[in-house]
Amino acid sequence: MQGDIVQAAKFIGAGLSMIGALGGGIGIGLSVHGALGGMARNPDTYGNLLTNMILGIAFSEAIAIYCLVIAFLMLFVL
Amino acid sequence: MQGDIVQAAKFIGAGLSMIGALGGGIGIGLSVHGALGGMARNPDTYGNLLTNMILGIAFSEAIAIYCLVIAFLMLFVL
Amino acid sequence: MQGDIVQAAKFIGAGLSMIGALGGGIGIGLSVHGALGGMARNPDTYGNLLTNMILGIAFSEAIAIYCLVIAFLMLFVL
Repeated sequence: MQGDIVQAAKFIGAGLSMIGALGGGIGIGLSVHGALGGMARNPDTYGNLLTNMILGIAFSEAIAIYCLVIAFLMLFVL
Repeated sequence: MQGDIVQAAKFIGAGLSMIGALGGGIGIGLSVHGALGGMARNPDTYGNLLTNMILGIAFSEAIAIYCLVIAFLMLFVL
Repeated sequence: MQGDIVQAAKFIGAGLSMIGALGGGIGIGLSVHGALGGMARNPDTYGNLLTNMILGIAFSEAIAIYCLVIAFLMLFVL
């Protein structure tokens, strides 16, 4: 029963949702940027910095995954 | 009773809402960036920096969750 | 009595409103970034930095809450 306009809006909505994923990309870059600067400044902290860099990457990646989930929901479930 | 145009607007609205999640991703990256730089500069403050990094991640993540909540509300509740 | 187009505009408006929440996420990250850098550089100021970091987080979070309130108002009250 869904008309063409609803089908069209799904594609636009999914596309808009993925714009939010750009924050995840920038956030991951900032985490790695801080970690690599720190590793060069003080190589003794390499292990700690690596652990927390992975933590930061995981949380920023999660933001991008949220956007991906919403886009997939719109395209395939609803 | 809802027309097609309302259904269509839900998809576009949910997609727009997820754009706001990008701020969470950038904020998490900034928190981790500051913490890792500080850990390398002064490893004695590792514990304090880690605690406050997690605090910053939690608050930034909350912003992204707000956007996700609004998107889910539009898609599944309203 | 509301027409479909008004109902549709509510969803789009609420989605647009949540885009503003991205500033809150970035602002929180900047506050934490500055505070953690300062804590590592001069650990004696830990208490003062923590107090003002929390203050900065609270004000940035308030911006995101404003956006959330407007979105909820559009979706549920008006």
